[in-house]
Formats: sequence, C-alpha cells, structure tokens
Amino acid sequence: MDEKKLVEAMQSHLDNLTKPRGSLGKLEEYCIKMASIQGKVPPKIEKKGVYVFGGDHGISDEGVSLYPKEVSFQMAMNMLSGGAGINALSDATGWDVIVVDSGIDWDFPPDSALNAKNRLIRAKISRGSRNFYKERAMTEEETEAAIGKGRELAEDAVRQGYNMVAVGDLGIGNTSTAAAMLIAAGMDADAIIDRGTGIDEKQLAHKKRVIKEGVVNRRPVKNAYSILQEVGAPDIAMMTGFILGLEGRGIACVIDGFPVSSAAYMAYMINPKITNYLFAGHLSKVAGHRIVLSAMGLSPIVSLEMHLGEGTGAVVGGFIVQLALACALNMSSFDSVDVSGKDIEEQKY
Amino acid sequence: MDEKKLVEAMQSHLDNLTKPRGSLGKLEEYCIKMASIQGKVPPKIEKKGVYVFGGDHGISDEGVSLYPKEVSFQMAMNMLSGGAGINALSDATGWDVIVVDSGIDWDFPPDSALNAKNRLIRAKISRGSRNFYKERAMTEEETEAAIGKGRELAEDAVRQGYNMVAVGDLGIGNTSTAAAMLIAAGMDADAIIDRGTGIDEKQLAHKKRVIKEGVVNRRPVKNAYSILQEVGAPDIAMMTGFILGLEGRGIACVIDGFPVSSAAYMAYMINPKITNYLFAGHLSKVAGHRIVLSAMGLSPIVSLEMHLGEGTGAVVGGFIVQLALACALNMSSFDSVDVSGKDIEEQKY
Repeated sequence: MDEKKLVEAMQSHLDNLTKPRGSLGKLEEYCIKMASIQGKVPPKIEKKGVYVFGGDHGISDEGVSLYPKEVSFQMAMNMLSGGAGINALSDATGWDVIVVDSGIDWDFPPDSALNAKNRLIRAKISRGSRNFYKERAMTEEETEAAIGKGRELAEDAVRQGYNMVAVGDLGIGNTSTAAAMLIAAGMDADAIIDRGTGIDEKQLAHKKRVIKEGVVNRRPVKNAYSILQEVGAPDIAMMTGFILGLEGRGIACVIDGFPVSSAAYMAYMINPKITNYLFAGHLSKVAGHRIVLSAMGLSPIVSLEMHLGEGTGAVVGGFIVQLALACALNMSSFDSVDVSGKDIEEQKY
Repeated sequence: MDEKKLVEAMQSHLDNLTKPRGSLGKLEEYCIKMASIQGKVPPKIEKKGVYVFGGDHGISDEGVSLYPKEVSFQMAMNMLSGGAGINALSDATGWDVIVVDSGIDWDFPPDSALNAKNRLIRAKISRGSRNFYKERAMTEEETEAAIGKGRELAEDAVRQGYNMVAVGDLGIGNTSTAAAMLIAAGMDADAIIDRGTGIDEKQLAHKKRVIKEGVVNRRPVKNAYSILQEVGAPDIAMMTGFILGLEGRGIACVIDGFPVSSAAYMAYMINPKITNYLFAGHLSKVAGHRIVLSAMGLSPIVSLEMHLGEGTGAVVGGFIVQLALACALNMSSFDSVDVSGKDIEEQKY
C-alpha cells in the first residue's frame, strides 16, 4: 500500500472506533506514524528492546563532569545485573535491555563471570574517544568502524525480532561531546551547553570554554562524518549508524535525551528521512534537547524533567506509543456495537 | 511518621538510588507525594481501579452537544463489555474498570443479562439532571444523596483494596454542566466554555449563550452545594463526594479531564486539602481544563491532546506515577552496589 493510502486506511480505522473523531489526540498521530513504519493497519508492537550505548569520553579529562570516569563501567555493570533506572522502567513496560559496550574504558569480564540478567553486546572498537580539546576524537578508521558497527547492530535488532527499539546512552562526559557536535553543526553554543549532571556556575563557565575552544581547535567541516571524527565519540557514532541502519526495516526507533538526540541529528544530516521512523520519547531537562529535537521536527511524547539518560525517557515515551496501538487494536468499532454518532465529523479546534 | 519526616525519608531513599540526584525529575515528586499519601517509604501501588461516573444531563435538551442522549447508555454498555477506549488503556496498564450508573437515563438490564466483563455499580438516584436552563438541576435531597452516595463509593474503593483510583466521566452534555459550575464558581465564561465534542462556531455561540443564561437563570450562591444543586448533576456530585470521601484513606486519586476536574474543584471548595492526594492525570484539549487545574495548583502529568473522557487520560497519568514508584522500589542503591558518586549534590537548574 502506498504511504497516502496507508494513512487514510489508518485514519479510517481510527474513525470507526467507538469514540468521537480525533478524541485520542496525539495517540492517533502515533498510530498513523506506526502504520506508515510497519506498512500495515492496524500496526502492532511485537517486541521492544532498548539498546543502551555506553562509552567513555576523553573530554572528561578536562574536568567537565563531576563524576569520575569509572562510573561508566560501574553503571554498565549495574545495568547488566538489573539495578539501574532503565531496568526498573523497562521491566514495568515490557522492554528488553541490551547494553552495548561501544567504547567503555574497561575490560568487561567474560560472560561466565558477568552475573548478568541482561545482554551485553561487545562492540568496543576503542576504549572511548580521545580528548577533543587536545586532539582528534577518533581516527577516520575508528569513525567508519563505529558507524559500521552501529549498522550491524541494526541487523541484530532485526534478527532479534524487535519492531520497536529505543536508544539510550551511558557514559561520563557524553553531554560535552554531544554539545560540541551540535555546535560544530552550527547550533548556538550558549543555548546548547548545559550543566549536564549537577555542576555549578563556575564549573559551567569552564565547561563552556573547554567545549567552545575544543570545537575551534578541531575545526570540523560541517558534515556528520567530519564532526563525529573531530569532536564525536565511538558510542555516539555507533548510535548514528544504528539509527541509519534501521531504515526500511519496519522498526520504530524511540530516541532518548540530549546525547542520543545529537547522534540522531548526525544521522539526520546524512539522511533526513530517518525522522519517518523516529519518535522523540521525551523532553529532558537538558537545555539543548529542545533545540535539537525541534531542528529535526520532532515533538517529545512526555516532558517529565528527567535527565538520567540510559534510555529512561525513551522507554516511557515508547510505551505511550504502544498504548495508542492498544486502542487501535482493542477498542470496538461502530460496525460491531450499537453506538450512535459514527458519522459526526470532528470540527478542528 | 510526620509529613516532614516522611518527605525527608523518601528524598533520602531516592538520593541513595544509583542515579544522579534529582535526575528522575517529576518522577521523584510523584514518589514523594505517594509517600505522603501512604505514610510509608517506599510507597507501593497494590491495586488500581478507575471509577467511571456515567450520567445524563438535562441541558442536552438545549442542543449543546452533537451526540444524541442515548450515546450515554450505549457507551456504558460498550465499556461494561470491554470495548471502549478506557478498557483498552486500562487493560494495558493494569487498572480495573468500574462503571458507576450515577444517573444514566436508561434502565440497565439485570446483571445476568448484562454480558459484562467489568463491574457495574448501580448508584442511580435519578435519571440525570434537569435542564438548568429552565429549572434547578437537582433538588436539595438529590444533591445530598448524590454526594453521600459518592462518599459510600469511596468506602467501596477501600473495601476493594484499591490504593490508587482514577475518576472518569461518561455522559452527553457533561462538559456544559461542568462549564456552568465553574462559571458559577467565578471563573471566566469565555475562557471556560469550549466546543466539547466537535461543534462548529455557530453551535459554540449557541452553547455559550445557553450556559451563560442558564447560570444567570439559576443564580447559585458561591458555594459548592448550591452550585451542584442549581447547575450541577448527580454524576458530578457523586464524583465530588467520592473525592471528598477518599481523604485519610491512604488512596491516591487521579483525575481525568474537564468534567471530572470540575467535580474535583467542587470538592476543593469544600476541602482544599484534597489536593494532597490528587494527581492531575493529563491536560486535555478542552480549553477550560488548564484553568481549573491551575486553580487547584495541580500540574498535569501528560499532555497528549486527548479529549475522550472516560478516565482515559487519568489511567495514562496514573500509570506514570506507578513507573515512578517502580524506580524507587526496584533500582539498586549506592549502599548495595559499587557505583561512585553518591555524595555529589545536584545543583539546581
């Protein structure tokens, strides 16, 4: 079915449900987008997985974050054993949690010693980015390898039978990398750079100076590959490849907060059509998040001032998309029960 | 434990979870409110039920709605058999659906003939409100009986073991009743009166005239009992009594859209402390909803442009409160796992 027919068929399905036309609001938009992604009416989510990309960031050597670097692997281990925020929210909403080691500066023990409830994908191509304040974040080979590995992980999602994935992030320093990338892409530095996780005014001034000067030091040209290489990181590049690799797979992708959205923006610079299958799970408390979502024309599903990362906002938003589909799948239709008023047109507000 | 100690104990519990302080945003506020309601840390939702109050409204004789009156009982039957929007959303988020006949102008068949998956509470004290444009909506006795019945239903919720309830509405014409009540309470008529379900400019002008003149014709004094009697309705009065009756029960109450919020506002006029256990499940597309929530100092949990009623926004918002508690209950703590950074204070944004 072509795009226009699919949208019409989905709208007609929704209009035949026992409710006033349009009364499910945004939930109806989500149904229509899902119908387009899956190419069928009504669409259905069979299996959901959140891929959390973990990596370390050389820029953290410049003191842009309060947390020590070892928190990255500690949190990855916590997530594998089921104790992180993303685990609590995923368990309650039916998502599998997949932790991707996309450059954590630590050697994970063998599977037999992991004590893991959740799956670890070992996708390390380096031990994180170099410090972009002083040198290129990645070599050209590393950049290509990271994007390529992300595309492979999209194949993994297909193989695992997921038709909705969420993308989460994990790694000390990743908001600084994300901010540098978006500034290099032309966005306003002062609007984009935020406190991240709990720093004060003085530390913020330092963070701004380091990131701005870092971008100037590197001088990336304005394309996604150059930006990723000069001021990016392997985990972010892997997310970019993952999002690009989902095109045409019938899989909806829910993005999380600021770091993931910066990766999505790189993918968007390469292929603007990715927004056809992207949902913005939430609006985080990080200042630049609204700017990058709006640059892609995406509206967040929820806005709960969360700023935890890990995919936590994405799984909440993605679950609301699933609730929308539950209405489309399980409500009775005017054809099947005796309720008057099917033909009443909704006036636009 | 006193209120202040409870809040401190809950915040300290949250700060000991493996995440940056404050990073769950609004979810942390919901945990703290739930701890206050339940008087324990961490709080837990054991059983959730949405009470959908159905009733007919005499004002619909004036042509303020596009839908014929029989839609009220048809939708109640649809809801009892599991085919309405509230059923689809409740099934997916773990709520029981309870339909309250609080004045539907129809005789429900005996239980044996209902073919119902869900529970019907027969709480009819009349066949709906009288047309307030022409006469008092209810007698004094009816008003008292409806509020009293609502309080009894709060006892029912306790008996059934619910510790989170949602309040939903069902009934053609109920947005007009709700608007009249809030205007009588002193709110601005032009800001409050909305299109309801799909009427055009001319019909809206008619609706505004009928409601404004109706309020003038009745001249209620500015207290909740007089307002309910003059321009209210038994279903709305029963919701008011239900909400009032939940005080001190350890039960959280999630309110839905405009009609339910107008009932909550009547309860608020009688006892402003009700907001201690109320959550605003969502912000609906109905214009006056924002005004009435803000008058009670309540912020909506989600804002999805829904305007279906039935409790649909309340069950979505209430489920997000449950997700907040899932984090508090199931995340590991800094004491139990090896993650650095427990003592890092969050700076306020």
